[in-house]
Amino acid sequence: MENKNFLMIPGPTPVPENVLLALARHPIGHRTKEFSRLFRAVTDRLSWLHQTQGEVMTLATSGTGAMEAAMINLLSPGDRVLCLVNGKFGERWAKVAAAYGMQVEVIDAPPGEPIDPARVQAHLKADPERVLKAVVVTHSETSTGVLNDLKTIAGLVKEHGEALTIVDAVTSLGAVSVPMDDWGLDAVASGSQKAYMLPPGLGFVALSERGWAAQKVSRSPKFYLDLAKYRKSLKEDTTPFTPAVGLVTALYESLEMLHREGLSELFARHGRMRDGVRAGVRALGLKPFVQDERFASAAITSVATTEAESIRSLMNKHYDIALAGGQDELKGQIFRIGHLGFVSDRDILTALGALEGTLRRLGHGDFTPGAGVGAALAVMAP
Amino acid sequence: MENKNFLMIPGPTPVPENVLLALARHPIGHRTKEFSRLFRAVTDRLSWLHQTQGEVMTLATSGTGAMEAAMINLLSPGDRVLCLVNGKFGERWAKVAAAYGMQVEVIDAPPGEPIDPARVQAHLKADPERVLKAVVVTHSETSTGVLNDLKTIAGLVKEHGEALTIVDAVTSLGAVSVPMDDWGLDAVASGSQKAYMLPPGLGFVALSERGWAAQKVSRSPKFYLDLAKYRKSLKEDTTPFTPAVGLVTALYESLEMLHREGLSELFARHGRMRDGVRAGVRALGLKPFVQDERFASAAITSVATTEAESIRSLMNKHYDIALAGGQDELKGQIFRIGHLGFVSDRDILTALGALEGTLRRLGHGDFTPGAGVGAALAVMAP
Repeated sequence: MENKNFLMIPGPTPVPENVLLALARHPIGHRTKEFSRLFRAVTDRLSWLHQTQGEVMTLATSGTGAMEAAMINLLSPGDRVLCLVNGKFGERWAKVAAAYGMQVEVIDAPPGEPIDPARVQAHLKADPERVLKAVVVTHSETSTGVLNDLKTIAGLVKEHGEALTIVDAVTSLGAVSVPMDDWGLDAVASGSQKAYMLPPGLGFVALSERGWAAQKVSRSPKFYLDLAKYRKSLKEDTTPFTPAVGLVTALYESLEMLHREGLSELFARHGRMRDGVRAGVRALGLKPFVQDERFASAAITSVATTEAESIRSLMNKHYDIALAGGQDELKGQIFRIGHLGFVSDRDILTALGALEGTLRRLGHGDFTPGAGVGAALAVMAP
Repeated sequence: MENKNFLMIPGPTPVPENVLLALARHPIGHRTKEFSRLFRAVTDRLSWLHQTQGEVMTLATSGTGAMEAAMINLLSPGDRVLCLVNGKFGERWAKVAAAYGMQVEVIDAPPGEPIDPARVQAHLKADPERVLKAVVVTHSETSTGVLNDLKTIAGLVKEHGEALTIVDAVTSLGAVSVPMDDWGLDAVASGSQKAYMLPPGLGFVALSERGWAAQKVSRSPKFYLDLAKYRKSLKEDTTPFTPAVGLVTALYESLEMLHREGLSELFARHGRMRDGVRAGVRALGLKPFVQDERFASAAITSVATTEAESIRSLMNKHYDIALAGGQDELKGQIFRIGHLGFVSDRDILTALGALEGTLRRLGHGDFTPGAGVGAALAVMAP
């Protein structure tokens, strides 16, 4: 059938009808009271979602633009920065830092495994002069579905005393609790096409007061991504450059929906979907790529199978469900199920039913009919 | 009335219904054949609009992001760059260059007056060592409605032999002919919320082959705005970072509309609207801010009057037409009528009728009834 495709990739994610209709509204002028009222409401809701007393900057960029803004506003050429790398997006941070002439240090872990906080601790202890300027953490690594232990790592950075914690929360924010103030995060970057339930095109960056202090003295060259300009304009409920008016209008709608759902149900729903997917996948004889439950992202589940590309192709052909493949060296080794944003328990059952049908078509029959859906229900509706 | 507001500001501009409806479509995955087909079609149409054999990069940024990308991809810290400044957006270029540590030289002109090419020529001749790296031209200065003589200036830069021509075509592209290859422009930046008939959120940058050669050796730090990444991805009909899928889908619709209209009618329509507005405004006893017809932008007409803010307010209140005010030191001195993008002869008559009504309310009656519309028709439908 046409027009029946359902996105279960880790972005773009499904967009609710009322948000789509907001996108179809005629743009309003951005230098108007009407836009400023809207932008203020949106900005307040963003603080709520980030669990911060501070304000969140909205940029017309994709998530990578927000990541870059977070890094180059806090750091300067020559700065030592520790990047924690266990996937493609962790690698990206190291590339951004290198592009700006920072001294990149790396602690890595194999794809699918979390960064070991003990190694981070040892690295920080090996810096008694407190020269290291920042530790960069990918919270939910989109390329594998690992959730790094951000809380513990941020706590270790706090003990160091000088280094800042910079976080890629692109696929965690809105799916997993990211209590920015409580955990002492200094920069949090995210993007609209994830749990925000919007199309791509907006990037978000929140800074702590320590982050803003670092921003003031940062010497990395920047103009469009200069967050001081955004903060200044925000005092007048506006933006320094023309905002993506349509996406901001739609963001108002989606944030209101998230707010009505409430943070605790929002995170509970994503956790429930993760548990359901993992149980269902296992019941169908497949193996989640992230084996340890404690480090499984509530936003994405990767499944390890050399039949990944056949499964994706048949899921798309017969059931109109788009799954993501592995990236780079994981291509053909895993497929990824995105379950963040406008996705419900019902969609998880749908996906597992379709996955069962797909596996049958591929000649797998070593499970009782309905095993995937049944196993998911057992954990989602016990 | 509600929902009746009509935008006659120089961006965001009105968006056609079919383009709005495209924005309301559910996003598609960006790593799919479907998106790549769409992106290829869009990219080809962009080359057509830029009148270039080269390819145009599409970024998820506003126009300023595209301007910055154009500059920092061609130039390096320490480079000498000549910025031609006769308004707010010309000033912006000088600020971007300074933020990246370039040596900024300026030739200026008072707001409302064009840059004198003879001064540019003298400046270029005073560089016999050919050290100057670039001349930066704002084609249509959005803050005043001046159209600088880009063709002549680009020709002078060609004679210099070394310097590159970098162009802000944000409000000219699609409203005024910008034959990139013919005029030898090396970088052309524009944004979606202008003659593209889209909401804001996409920036476009086209480089000449000389521009790409400069790109290869540029040392300005960049990642999200690194155009080499966009060019590489474009070989596979895709983008290096998540594109603003919804806006790209809508761009396909709007570019098809522009293509059906054809370049000659597109530019003729904008020229006709400019002539109509200027004739109408004069017939109502007001004075176009740009006095010399040869330098009047086909995209925006500024009108010089100390009653600017009252006029804007009453136009909005009684006729639901949004006009732009003056910026910075021009606030209260001019108002600006945007007539670019999805604007037709009919809208010009509407605006002039409403302007007459507004002037009557302000106590002006020193014109025959219908004088504005009549004068416009005399030039638009002779």
